[in-house]
Amino acid sequence: MNSKDSLEKLKLLRAEMQKHQIDAFVAMSADPHMSEYLPDYWKVRLWLTGFTGSVGTIVITQDFAGLWVDGRYWVQAEQQLLNTGFVLQKQTAEESSTHLAWLTKNLEKNAKISVNGQTISVQQFDALKQIAKQNHFQIETQLDLIDQIWDDRPTLPVEAIWQMRSDLTAQTRLEKISHIRQALHEKNASAHFISALDDIAWIFNCRGSDVEYNPVFLAHLFIDQHRTVLFIDAAKLSTELKTQFNDEHIEIQAYEQTQNFLTQLKDQHVLIDPAKVSILHAQTIIQHNQLIQDINPSTLFKSQKHDLEIAHVRNAMQKDGVALCHFFHWLETALKTQQPINELDIDKKITAFRAQQSGFIGLSFSTIAGFNANGALPHYRATEENYSDIQGDGLLLIDSGGQYEDGTTDITRVVPIGQPSAQQKRDYTLVLKCHIALAQTVFPEGIAAPLLDAITRQALWKQGLDYRHGTGHGVGYALNVHEGPQVISYYSPATIYTKLHKGMITSNEPGLYHEGKYGIRIENLVVNQPKVFQDQTYGHFLEFETLTLCPIDQSCIVLDLLSNDEKSWLNQYHQMVRERLSPDLKGEVLTWLINNTQPI
Amino acid sequence: MNSKDSLEKLKLLRAEMQKHQIDAFVAMSADPHMSEYLPDYWKVRLWLTGFTGSVGTIVITQDFAGLWVDGRYWVQAEQQLLNTGFVLQKQTAEESSTHLAWLTKNLEKNAKISVNGQTISVQQFDALKQIAKQNHFQIETQLDLIDQIWDDRPTLPVEAIWQMRSDLTAQTRLEKISHIRQALHEKNASAHFISALDDIAWIFNCRGSDVEYNPVFLAHLFIDQHRTVLFIDAAKLSTELKTQFNDEHIEIQAYEQTQNFLTQLKDQHVLIDPAKVSILHAQTIIQHNQLIQDINPSTLFKSQKHDLEIAHVRNAMQKDGVALCHFFHWLETALKTQQPINELDIDKKITAFRAQQSGFIGLSFSTIAGFNANGALPHYRATEENYSDIQGDGLLLIDSGGQYEDGTTDITRVVPIGQPSAQQKRDYTLVLKCHIALAQTVFPEGIAAPLLDAITRQALWKQGLDYRHGTGHGVGYALNVHEGPQVISYYSPATIYTKLHKGMITSNEPGLYHEGKYGIRIENLVVNQPKVFQDQTYGHFLEFETLTLCPIDQSCIVLDLLSNDEKSWLNQYHQMVRERLSPDLKGEVLTWLINNTQPI
Repeated sequence: MNSKDSLEKLKLLRAEMQKHQIDAFVAMSADPHMSEYLPDYWKVRLWLTGFTGSVGTIVITQDFAGLWVDGRYWVQAEQQLLNTGFVLQKQTAEESSTHLAWLTKNLEKNAKISVNGQTISVQQFDALKQIAKQNHFQIETQLDLIDQIWDDRPTLPVEAIWQMRSDLTAQTRLEKISHIRQALHEKNASAHFISALDDIAWIFNCRGSDVEYNPVFLAHLFIDQHRTVLFIDAAKLSTELKTQFNDEHIEIQAYEQTQNFLTQLKDQHVLIDPAKVSILHAQTIIQHNQLIQDINPSTLFKSQKHDLEIAHVRNAMQKDGVALCHFFHWLETALKTQQPINELDIDKKITAFRAQQSGFIGLSFSTIAGFNANGALPHYRATEENYSDIQGDGLLLIDSGGQYEDGTTDITRVVPIGQPSAQQKRDYTLVLKCHIALAQTVFPEGIAAPLLDAITRQALWKQGLDYRHGTGHGVGYALNVHEGPQVISYYSPATIYTKLHKGMITSNEPGLYHEGKYGIRIENLVVNQPKVFQDQTYGHFLEFETLTLCPIDQSCIVLDLLSNDEKSWLNQYHQMVRERLSPDLKGEVLTWLINNTQPI
Repeated sequence: MNSKDSLEKLKLLRAEMQKHQIDAFVAMSADPHMSEYLPDYWKVRLWLTGFTGSVGTIVITQDFAGLWVDGRYWVQAEQQLLNTGFVLQKQTAEESSTHLAWLTKNLEKNAKISVNGQTISVQQFDALKQIAKQNHFQIETQLDLIDQIWDDRPTLPVEAIWQMRSDLTAQTRLEKISHIRQALHEKNASAHFISALDDIAWIFNCRGSDVEYNPVFLAHLFIDQHRTVLFIDAAKLSTELKTQFNDEHIEIQAYEQTQNFLTQLKDQHVLIDPAKVSILHAQTIIQHNQLIQDINPSTLFKSQKHDLEIAHVRNAMQKDGVALCHFFHWLETALKTQQPINELDIDKKITAFRAQQSGFIGLSFSTIAGFNANGALPHYRATEENYSDIQGDGLLLIDSGGQYEDGTTDITRVVPIGQPSAQQKRDYTLVLKCHIALAQTVFPEGIAAPLLDAITRQALWKQGLDYRHGTGHGVGYALNVHEGPQVISYYSPATIYTKLHKGMITSNEPGLYHEGKYGIRIENLVVNQPKVFQDQTYGHFLEFETLTLCPIDQSCIVLDLLSNDEKSWLNQYHQMVRERLSPDLKGEVLTWLINNTQPI
């Protein structure tokens, strides 16, 4: 799209705003499921502004149009917003930098704000409502102003959904629903409304292709002690699945019927997750029912993988590791033989090698391959219009992942190109020390995940260094690469939902970024396993089993900076990688694996 | 007191309850200031039950009398409650073990609960109110039923207060009050009511002797943009202080007038700290005013010691260290010459040596001297009726502290007696590793203190060991040995008030306790100092300066378990201790210091 489009759209939108007497239009990056990846139908921000980042908030008045984005996207947004009529608003951790602060400062008393109630969560709406109350603003949630002006708006996706093979799932749908009913009972809830797509996919043991990277399908779900109602476009369901659902007394209603169904709901205590349900649905429910706001029980259940699932993930990791060995061997050869390669080639090659593995479904997110300065942008993505050649000296950061029918992977490695500098080697070693510190941790079961972050960052903090992203996010089982509720980040509140339990899979990804120069990140996925001691007086402990199988570059390590303990961790890791991957490799690639898993 | 008293008192109280149609009487360990140490007048729990621990909650109905205490006190409470009519209720981290859960389970609908509104904070009352609402209980806060039956109830203390020497304070009263007014303005508060005694003492640069160990005086304080009103028994004030207050436009009203004053307050936005103001006062204020609930600004100001105050604390630490060298030298000699000593002797001797130091005011808490099994009780106190002789093999734990006019100290050391076992040595070394890990930490300014706890405990967790108390509490400046808001404990919520800033003084006290066998704790006080790096891209960092000056026993260390880095920390610490203390020591004590600060 070009910037003229944006100016024209702004004009049309402002006319709509005047028609409805709206003083400010607000749009978040969201759909009615509060998803990370949106179907095209809901890509309102992209359509309006042309900004391609993953998160951003729009505010439009008659004489202002702003896009709020966080530090990851300032450079990119600055370029993409040129001549669009939108002004970049730099959002930081400061309260004063938010769109809410802007509204407070710039709107008149009694101003009327329009936000599409389908695309703002109960939690986000509470924050907006609070400033509205303080400043005597009115909020209108029923209008979709964009729909009035978006002529060629895409339709919602209707991709077929599939059921996971029964040997890949630890519990049946009905067992999961039964556990949820038990949880509802314990919370004094008589009913439950779920919009989170990964929760619904997990409960149903089904997967879909409605959005990029996340194997989910558009649906809402209602559960009470007697009924299970799935709101979904029936075109997504095979005859076989329809029959199964029927046999299991799962009712199917049209996706568009959700609102109607909720309108008729009466005298229930309805559990909803305020971060995962739209205010429009919540407002509908509350008309004739009580709301109980709490995390979805399925979010907690889903996060604790069963042993059977973990066994499958180990298998997926093995396939992913084999693909990565092929890729890194290719890269080494290409570099040695001085083939010209660029960041886009990395993406293509790594995807191609993964696609050769059995049960491969797709990528779990868009590959990040950033050379030197590009590696310093934690969410960099090379595009046809904007990419770097890989030549000269420096560091190449590659963060990638695959979706397999038996697991989801997410791995970052850094490859030295030419002659990395002494500072690059020192920084690489510090990040590796951070990675090993977390990998070796033992901790009481039930500790809040953010509390482990300081252990990770010690080696960097002691040098006055740090990184501005979390150390770990939850990862799904053949599902979303980002899932809650645990998060290892000292920025995040240590709530009861971030407690670490057996079976949770989390990323371990410390990093370091020198803006304009280079970036480093070393990432494996780990799973919480019980660490059993003979004397249990002091409670139950957990430790991390590292799941990811792929050599960590050793040529960039400053050996003097590693303790014997750290070296021994690395050697044991590489021994495991070699033992697990070598049966599936041969020839040059096997030699590459052996060369790159030698003890130090 | 004997148990017959208790039974008689229970009978009288139950009669009072019937008279007022009260179904359940609840008493917390508190006074109208939510203090840790109470004046005798408010020691209701001790008077009723004979239990001498520091915390406990009472519930009495016509057919039940229970005392809820946490794990530290189970053994002691079991003994002290024998034949009193009170049943020990073991409180744990489980919600179901609380007195609130008991009330929910055992009271009938519409039951009437009496709790003296003077002795329950707004925050505690909110929790009670919540279960009352759920269960349709009524709460009565205006009655002091105990007063009806406590004939010889002590009067409130009227000890004289004194002003700190001006060279010991970094700001005047009026400067502090001016900063508070600024903070009120920022919080949109027009007035402020303070009950926390250490806050009031800090604001006024005055100290008192109304309770044990904490050099505070009973008072409430009201501040708005024009007035400062101190509610205090005028008998505590010298003519000189009265004149000064008058010159500074500080009004004095009688302590008993507080409630009356609040009744007449109108149309204000009054800031109160819900954890530090009684519900009775809050209920009075809210009649004609708006409440703003937030932490007292003075609590935050007070926690960040000025450089001048830190310099004085260093001096206090030097005096304390000199006293401790004399004490440990005496102990070593007594043990060598086989003098019979017991735990009570330790308390007497250590207090006597401290009392010889200039500016000594008193102890900052009651000395804990616990040999072997007694050392395993984190809050053990030897009494004339119950103490151990120090003989045989094992570990002696000594936790003690002094109040000086220029600082407050709190230190724990462990002394091997005879031949400690291999396990004792290993455990001692693990605790030392924990202590050093925290002492060496570097961390971003503003990080929540609880996040540092996991760094401390790593060495123990890796062996399946842990300790059930926090690692660090804030410490006052010639004020309470326990002060907020920072706390280094993974059990504690990481709220915005626990953020670490420059100048905060905190204890570093990891431990390990084998019930019935022995206990270990190694404690120094540390102060947050800026750690300045050349490149400030990654923000501002802090590190800990260790303030406490006293050798750490090295004969119990298993050297193989310490890294070079850890040994080097210990050697540097001992070098500093030797350099700072040796000028004030001579003869045998100086020799003792030199012997006990040798590098390892």
